[in-house]
Amino acid sequence: MIMNVGVVGATGHTGEELIGVLLNHPNVRITRLYNSGAENQVISDVFPKFKNRIELVCKKADIKEISRDCDIIFLALPHTVSMAIAPKILKAGRKVIDLSADYRLKDAVVYEKFYKVKHTDKQNLKTAVYGLPEIYRAVIKTAKLVANPGCYPTCAILSLAPLVAFDLVELDSIIIDAKSGVSGAGKKLLKDFLFSEVDEDFRAYKINEHQHIPEINQLLSRLAAQKINVTFVPHLLPLDRGILETIYIKKIKNPKFKNQKVIELYRKFYKKEPFVRIRKENEFPRIKDVAGTNFCDIGIKEESGSIIIVAAIDNLLKGAAGQAVQNMNIMCNFPEYLGLL
Amino acid sequence: MIMNVGVVGATGHTGEELIGVLLNHPNVRITRLYNSGAENQVISDVFPKFKNRIELVCKKADIKEISRDCDIIFLALPHTVSMAIAPKILKAGRKVIDLSADYRLKDAVVYEKFYKVKHTDKQNLKTAVYGLPEIYRAVIKTAKLVANPGCYPTCAILSLAPLVAFDLVELDSIIIDAKSGVSGAGKKLLKDFLFSEVDEDFRAYKINEHQHIPEINQLLSRLAAQKINVTFVPHLLPLDRGILETIYIKKIKNPKFKNQKVIELYRKFYKKEPFVRIRKENEFPRIKDVAGTNFCDIGIKEESGSIIIVAAIDNLLKGAAGQAVQNMNIMCNFPEYLGLL
Amino acid sequence: MIMNVGVVGATGHTGEELIGVLLNHPNVRITRLYNSGAENQVISDVFPKFKNRIELVCKKADIKEISRDCDIIFLALPHTVSMAIAPKILKAGRKVIDLSADYRLKDAVVYEKFYKVKHTDKQNLKTAVYGLPEIYRAVIKTAKLVANPGCYPTCAILSLAPLVAFDLVELDSIIIDAKSGVSGAGKKLLKDFLFSEVDEDFRAYKINEHQHIPEINQLLSRLAAQKINVTFVPHLLPLDRGILETIYIKKIKNPKFKNQKVIELYRKFYKKEPFVRIRKENEFPRIKDVAGTNFCDIGIKEESGSIIIVAAIDNLLKGAAGQAVQNMNIMCNFPEYLGLL
Amino acid sequence: MIMNVGVVGATGHTGEELIGVLLNHPNVRITRLYNSGAENQVISDVFPKFKNRIELVCKKADIKEISRDCDIIFLALPHTVSMAIAPKILKAGRKVIDLSADYRLKDAVVYEKFYKVKHTDKQNLKTAVYGLPEIYRAVIKTAKLVANPGCYPTCAILSLAPLVAFDLVELDSIIIDAKSGVSGAGKKLLKDFLFSEVDEDFRAYKINEHQHIPEINQLLSRLAAQKINVTFVPHLLPLDRGILETIYIKKIKNPKFKNQKVIELYRKFYKKEPFVRIRKENEFPRIKDVAGTNFCDIGIKEESGSIIIVAAIDNLLKGAAGQAVQNMNIMCNFPEYLGLL
Repeated sequence: MIMNVGVVGATGHTGEELIGVLLNHPNVRITRLYNSGAENQVISDVFPKFKNRIELVCKKADIKEISRDCDIIFLALPHTVSMAIAPKILKAGRKVIDLSADYRLKDAVVYEKFYKVKHTDKQNLKTAVYGLPEIYRAVIKTAKLVANPGCYPTCAILSLAPLVAFDLVELDSIIIDAKSGVSGAGKKLLKDFLFSEVDEDFRAYKINEHQHIPEINQLLSRLAAQKINVTFVPHLLPLDRGILETIYIKKIKNPKFKNQKVIELYRKFYKKEPFVRIRKENEFPRIKDVAGTNFCDIGIKEESGSIIIVAAIDNLLKGAAGQAVQNMNIMCNFPEYLGLL
Repeated sequence: MIMNVGVVGATGHTGEELIGVLLNHPNVRITRLYNSGAENQVISDVFPKFKNRIELVCKKADIKEISRDCDIIFLALPHTVSMAIAPKILKAGRKVIDLSADYRLKDAVVYEKFYKVKHTDKQNLKTAVYGLPEIYRAVIKTAKLVANPGCYPTCAILSLAPLVAFDLVELDSIIIDAKSGVSGAGKKLLKDFLFSEVDEDFRAYKINEHQHIPEINQLLSRLAAQKINVTFVPHLLPLDRGILETIYIKKIKNPKFKNQKVIELYRKFYKKEPFVRIRKENEFPRIKDVAGTNFCDIGIKEESGSIIIVAAIDNLLKGAAGQAVQNMNIMCNFPEYLGLL
Repeated sequence: MIMNVGVVGATGHTGEELIGVLLNHPNVRITRLYNSGAENQVISDVFPKFKNRIELVCKKADIKEISRDCDIIFLALPHTVSMAIAPKILKAGRKVIDLSADYRLKDAVVYEKFYKVKHTDKQNLKTAVYGLPEIYRAVIKTAKLVANPGCYPTCAILSLAPLVAFDLVELDSIIIDAKSGVSGAGKKLLKDFLFSEVDEDFRAYKINEHQHIPEINQLLSRLAAQKINVTFVPHLLPLDRGILETIYIKKIKNPKFKNQKVIELYRKFYKKEPFVRIRKENEFPRIKDVAGTNFCDIGIKEESGSIIIVAAIDNLLKGAAGQAVQNMNIMCNFPEYLGLL
Repeated sequence: MIMNVGVVGATGHTGEELIGVLLNHPNVRITRLYNSGAENQVISDVFPKFKNRIELVCKKADIKEISRDCDIIFLALPHTVSMAIAPKILKAGRKVIDLSADYRLKDAVVYEKFYKVKHTDKQNLKTAVYGLPEIYRAVIKTAKLVANPGCYPTCAILSLAPLVAFDLVELDSIIIDAKSGVSGAGKKLLKDFLFSEVDEDFRAYKINEHQHIPEINQLLSRLAAQKINVTFVPHLLPLDRGILETIYIKKIKNPKFKNQKVIELYRKFYKKEPFVRIRKENEFPRIKDVAGTNFCDIGIKEESGSIIIVAAIDNLLKGAAGQAVQNMNIMCNFPEYLGLL
């Protein structure tokens, strides 16, 4: 069975990545591409690497056309733009996978605090499903609107879920020191992202103030059934793609819960997951292990009752476009890894 | 003797570099910094690396203040902006070293073709001295207005001057394949210079159409006393600073003029130059050899009557700020290397 | 139909790339991996990115096993090592695609001059087919031993073939200024390839002495039916993958053969080729357009009778592993693009 | 007054950096350079960037020559090599600044555990002075043997000293997430430091096992007058020079000790220091702020009783060669900043 899919926001960084993944998907036909700009653009003029592979023209989004030509729509739009178009597509009876942050935070007040705009689609916010397959696969299957997770949260939540869900560690001392490549910032034309600013540099930013913090807290709190506030400091790496997070947990509750046991717990927790790889004792992932893949690799070290976790994903794949297609596969009843290996 | 100097355009890439060089100069006091913007900015807030070293406030340029507080003014301004302010400073009796292209091309028509604006100061254009010390030292000494050379031309002209001046090669076959780091483009906020665009990429641009071509042609033609048109293709390297040019000359006129002889000619030509280093036979410069220095390194290979030259400079130093200070040293009768080693 | 394939030299840079491509190929089963070292290594321990995808053990090559378990063997070995094992595999009746230089140069004397060793398999050298599908597709179809082309030659020959084959330009003035990412050098543990040496650097090397020169000359001379000697200067880019070549041709023979005509000639020449893309007038490829793909992109500019060509490939794909699989597809009668788009 | 100085280990990464700094020092004459290898090498052949600046021949170290020609000797040697030569130079009556780890750890047992060799010079170990001027200036003044601090410890200790010395925070919860450029690893010819391994990658290594941990613990414990064990995870950045450390402190003892107060404490603590810059509230250093300088920049954020510190140094300057020259300035009674600004 072939799915007809459309991408809104096709000319952005995530759009580019999505098109690349979808072109490799055996069960997908890309029928429509939309950009936000006023002009029509041939996608292979915007991204010459797609020449001879896809030559669709990107136009302004048109709901009628979408509902006629697409079974599933991916929204690769900036935050706050998605919620203007998603309701219309949903109303037209088509499924939406939204890669922005607009439907991730269940509490609109928190959304408004961190994204500095009013939430204009609280109705769909209620029913949107958080698209982290490893935790919410069952509900993703039948979802109409999937909120594709943020990149930092994907890596953080997968790294912490087993410990948090089984109440094995003290929850008030979780520190996440996160490092991301520049593509995480999309293609924003800001001085901060000029080559001369990033090259040979490394910096922390939004120290314990990043908009992904409430997303991480919301998910971990649900898993723990109690309020969790993590400490989270993101940094900007002088490279294009990849996230690595080093996570510090002060204290395991049960002192007998030693290194190898913790690793076993993780292996068990994720044993049927096609895209989570728990590394051996004393083996830790690096960005190269996951760049260009949809995997999340996790290495764990317990020592004297403290735990250090090192986890890595490709922010554009497992942290965005790859996970979106994984969600599509689930929604379409395709094998979950289709087009992603 | 201490010179009081001012920098107009202090918050740009070249301005930053100039300040760094001038702070290390034993005979210089930076008295004034100007920016083009409307707001006052403390220079060490713009460039935190200067904290504790210089805390001047950058303001809008003020001719009265300049003529009162500065002996020499460096203009680190975009092309076309310099010629608006230079005449005023000159009129006020102060010397100007202009790092823009505004006074480099003697033929205003050519300037207007390549820079797409009218030249508004043809009077000073006539008397401006091209600030390449290795060729024009004598006139720089007494110049009131120095046109500091472009980065690509500095490297190209120094590489070719001995052969061209002594009429040793066929002049219609000079090919310059030039590669520059991104800082050459200043701090322009263009998509092309975003980290995600430049990192892991390499591209040619303005193929045989670059605005530095007439500058190279003008200088080489003067040296040869005949019209020269070089072929010139610049490329953008995924690194911050440095230019490397690979130059191809089809034919030496005298077939007995062999490799070691050519190298000797170059050594002789540049023997008193503090900043030109002719490399040994079979030794060629790389960008690391000159980055962070004011040197121009040149390696030469003659083979079967053809010549290949590889030359390198730091585009921000010998290609801009360093050469500007070298010119200042000459104008002030300081040792030429002062503050530059 | 599924082909059983083996890779000898699986733990090198090209081996890694080959495995990545072959894993995505729908008609391929990787049955055997061999390394050169003494120890057995699980491939996913060497390259953790392959975890959960392929867990074969790399062992010392065993001809009996190869002939039993593999239909086609890829040799991803250093130069001079291939010719020690290829004859044995061929004798055992299996087809070989050799990614080393050992069977590329028809003249063993030239091979010995550039690779500094005696050629020990002149018999197979005679019948080996040069695996550049765009030129030799017909003979590749039935070849037993394919010599997969070098990365620089692939890019250079595809860029020049139409002009050379139709005798349109003066052949004694071809200059190839080539720039390659570091992966071209494999994983050699040399000081020159340390991060601290390459990062923020750029350099020329083996100036007009590179071992790929005779390969380019051999192929172009065959196409032209006369001896061609190109000038070729390679450079090392501070990036991982990709080659860009800027090619200068002094003179078109027929002065009426203008820009758009040249581009049309190229389009026609390559019109059925799945992996050659001729760019529009005034459009030139950059490395990002081809990195991660099997495409060769070519941009052309004719001006006053001279031609400048800018061409780019991914040195590990069209310049090595991708082209090897393209050759395999031809040999197996698979669609040529299978597993490569 | 001019000091005659020598460098042993001149051809390594730190040696190169030291020579660069010393060449800019107005009161220094480099009289001798030594390498560890068997062959004599002209230093400007090893590092062409020094051509025309210094042409000394590097030879095997000779104690007699050293004691005759050098007032002060810098040892830029690998760990364990320094302690073989330092006693001889000291015996000959010359002062030594050792940039290796050999004299940093007062407890030889700890040294032997982390560096895997016996300590062979326990006598000088006792009297060696830890060369961190901000803490030990008084004793450095008269020291005969200075153990120049490690790069990570310099950044960590300066970041934590005020809080630890005044007993303001809980000491059992200090987490240091450290990131370093590749030059920190010297010029070791290891696969891990190849360009293709580091470029576009980021990884943690020696997780809570790094040899700099006991150095940090020793110094902080002395300042606190109680045993401190920090958690320390180093990471490798894809850049050449610079260290950034993000430090997490769970709890301030006095809840009234708020953000601005903490910053004031730091400013006061370091107010006379020429090379420590405490950043304003909500301002944090990045690597670019300190690369190429001898500064240590520190930014501080207190929130709800926890503290996050971001600090940066250039690992080759304040973390090695720059600090060594700062120590030399103190030992010679020169202005401390001489040659370093």
